[in-house]
Amino acid sequence: MKQFISVADVPGVPGMINTALGYKKEPFKDKTLGAGKTLGMLFLNPSLRTRLSTQVAARNLGMEVIVFNIDKEGWQLEMNDGVVMSGSTTEHVKEAAAVMGQYFDILSIRTFPGLQNKEEDYTEKYISQFIKYAGIPVVSLESATLHPLQSLTDVVTIHEHWQQPRKPKVVMTWAPHVKALPQAVPNSFAQWMNAWGEADFVITHPEGYELDPKFSGNARVEHDQDKALQDADFVYVKNWSSYKDYGKITSTDNSWMITNRKLEQTAGAKVMHCLPVRRNVVIADEVLDGPQSIVIRQAGNRVWAAQAVLSEILKNS
Amino acid sequence: MKQFISVADVPGVPGMINTALGYKKEPFKDKTLGAGKTLGMLFLNPSLRTRLSTQVAARNLGMEVIVFNIDKEGWQLEMNDGVVMSGSTTEHVKEAAAVMGQYFDILSIRTFPGLQNKEEDYTEKYISQFIKYAGIPVVSLESATLHPLQSLTDVVTIHEHWQQPRKPKVVMTWAPHVKALPQAVPNSFAQWMNAWGEADFVITHPEGYELDPKFSGNARVEHDQDKALQDADFVYVKNWSSYKDYGKITSTDNSWMITNRKLEQTAGAKVMHCLPVRRNVVIADEVLDGPQSIVIRQAGNRVWAAQAVLSEILKNS
Amino acid sequence: MKQFISVADVPGVPGMINTALGYKKEPFKDKTLGAGKTLGMLFLNPSLRTRLSTQVAARNLGMEVIVFNIDKEGWQLEMNDGVVMSGSTTEHVKEAAAVMGQYFDILSIRTFPGLQNKEEDYTEKYISQFIKYAGIPVVSLESATLHPLQSLTDVVTIHEHWQQPRKPKVVMTWAPHVKALPQAVPNSFAQWMNAWGEADFVITHPEGYELDPKFSGNARVEHDQDKALQDADFVYVKNWSSYKDYGKITSTDNSWMITNRKLEQTAGAKVMHCLPVRRNVVIADEVLDGPQSIVIRQAGNRVWAAQAVLSEILKNS
Repeated sequence: MKQFISVADVPGVPGMINTALGYKKEPFKDKTLGAGKTLGMLFLNPSLRTRLSTQVAARNLGMEVIVFNIDKEGWQLEMNDGVVMSGSTTEHVKEAAAVMGQYFDILSIRTFPGLQNKEEDYTEKYISQFIKYAGIPVVSLESATLHPLQSLTDVVTIHEHWQQPRKPKVVMTWAPHVKALPQAVPNSFAQWMNAWGEADFVITHPEGYELDPKFSGNARVEHDQDKALQDADFVYVKNWSSYKDYGKITSTDNSWMITNRKLEQTAGAKVMHCLPVRRNVVIADEVLDGPQSIVIRQAGNRVWAAQAVLSEILKNS
Repeated sequence: MKQFISVADVPGVPGMINTALGYKKEPFKDKTLGAGKTLGMLFLNPSLRTRLSTQVAARNLGMEVIVFNIDKEGWQLEMNDGVVMSGSTTEHVKEAAAVMGQYFDILSIRTFPGLQNKEEDYTEKYISQFIKYAGIPVVSLESATLHPLQSLTDVVTIHEHWQQPRKPKVVMTWAPHVKALPQAVPNSFAQWMNAWGEADFVITHPEGYELDPKFSGNARVEHDQDKALQDADFVYVKNWSSYKDYGKITSTDNSWMITNRKLEQTAGAKVMHCLPVRRNVVIADEVLDGPQSIVIRQAGNRVWAAQAVLSEILKNS
Repeated sequence: MKQFISVADVPGVPGMINTALGYKKEPFKDKTLGAGKTLGMLFLNPSLRTRLSTQVAARNLGMEVIVFNIDKEGWQLEMNDGVVMSGSTTEHVKEAAAVMGQYFDILSIRTFPGLQNKEEDYTEKYISQFIKYAGIPVVSLESATLHPLQSLTDVVTIHEHWQQPRKPKVVMTWAPHVKALPQAVPNSFAQWMNAWGEADFVITHPEGYELDPKFSGNARVEHDQDKALQDADFVYVKNWSSYKDYGKITSTDNSWMITNRKLEQTAGAKVMHCLPVRRNVVIADEVLDGPQSIVIRQAGNRVWAAQAVLSEILKNS
């Protein structure tokens, strides 16, 4: 594996799940694999789970980790080519990425979309420039349109909570929120569910919240949340802003919040969320504090997903 | 030891002193005790000594350390239960603490009091929520009302500077300051002096600065600073804001600043302060630069106190 | 070596070059030299290359590294003696430096000049206070007037790109910029070129940008850039503000920007810059993206320069 930007980069979803669960059983079984190698972690945006779990994962493999909040501790980067840099940007990504490529063995980057310019966000301008110029493997810690470390975690979590021979019914449901959020998590979850193929996957959201078909693919879309939740085995809850009316909140229908009553129609579904979650806006307290929530174990799995990704790159680059 | 929030958590003050001094002699004698374990250090407030010394201590024990300035690098946390999170908080402590409990083996937290609401501060709402939800040992790096790593350091420092058979006279004196400061350091020092019992302990401050009796206990309080300082072997200098008139500066009597003249009446007392200290406001230059000040050695002992605490938890959790 | 503040601290420039290139060939040959030792890295200003490369260098030697953004994560320091600290500074450098001297084995510091007060900047007040009070070796990560880690890197880079028996002609040229920048990099480069003596060294800049003769020494100064560039083997490009009219931009002559046309008169010169560089202001895209630029390899060499410096201190302190 040469990079980890989307599901297209992995040698196969089931293999990655096995690798991750192998590390969950034996965190230190490859504790010298990364000896003498350094992971650079570049943050342009806040992060809790990704920041912490990826550091733990890298150390479990014996890698050194250097964390760099580039916006606060370094310079503002210029991402456009051919610019006369007489404004607020101090360094061009061409230099910044290439220089970090000299210092690190793997470069990981967290960058959110601006949600102002669909084309700029959906061409993944920022992380693409780093890939182009760093000259070393790049790992996404969430980019403008995808969050593959989260999605690998999610399939690992579904896999380990499902023992039946039939495919589970997995429903990803939009939920209300007070701010316009990226589509990265739902895009990525849809992409991985489609690539994995081991679930009966349904997406439900109010009209206007259709995801980019590049990621949602042939997944069944159901605008009636109650109908979608029927007999669900896993309910993946997430807010996102509109892709069509780009970056806008086109509905704030609070009846989409996940409550115990909503879960009654499911098959005792496990409830998942990538976190952070705004309680009693996205999901009710009663659900998060109840027996069906697996959000903490899901977050715990972030370590093993990151460890699987880093180990694949260390073994094959 | 399952947590380190106050003196009540330690198996015994003399034992902790010995452990700390053992590490001072041989910093690396337990250098694999923490192998494969990670200390999370969560900062909500600035810190120099605590931040740096605890990292050194953890590494001396072979632990990994992950530092997280949660307010700057992560999200703003909701501390109250049952809230509809439609405001400025992005994540509830229930999730944040539980998730960090998945990644770390020990969680340490620095959080200052608001000094607005005595009840909220004195119930230690913030750190208590972390203890409740993290599911792993929690170490205070200073909380709203106590600073036990400092106090363990202080008793270690007094112990190593005292060779006589009689108990030393230790005087904690209030001193002026320009800002309203927490009572955490004086509360904690009083609590540890009382628990230790190996000193003749006197507290002196202007009227109105009485500490919470829960911490000051039966310690002798003397409102005449000159009288209190008589024959002192150790003078512990510290400003704090009023507990009664909560968080207020009720006196700014500059005559309470510690000068060489004040020290004349002591028994050649060693002068201590937790630092940072505002020179010529709290303590005069002549004292800090003179032979009676042991503030730098005291700060140096922070490493060994932290190492004793972490090792106790590693051995017993 | 007891400290690394300027070229005067090194046992000899050629020896340092050899040590650095030795590490470039075998990064881990001294991987236990720094075992049990901690490098403190104190930042008062942003940094990318210095921050990252020095961490890698220290880890290559087996040192622990603790990074501390003192202005954001700690307190504002008082640098003046005898002050009544009733203002915005919380801690005096006397305590801060001495305390860090208790925790670390080597203390490294990044601090920029204010560019307001020549005397304060040129007496290196800030870093000098740390040296005075830390009690351990201090390494400059760039100070008010010098950047020796950069300059050692620069001589290493020139040395490894030059195989001919004759001395190379090295031209340091001023270039335009939109902000008033420190003289630290050009001062330091001049100081090292003079000390090294293995190059025919020329400085070119518009009148008014003369450097402090303490650093430029007997180097030839040529105000006609075209004439200076004639037959150059290396062109070191850098903007700086005026030393005479202290901290001011006295010329913004854009014709000084380095372009391919300017390079035509050189002997196919390699182009160097310490980075970050504002493209199409200081150096044109065509140069930075062309075959004569060695800025990325130069930045890569920062690791080996830092490793040479740290190893010299570890071996001799």
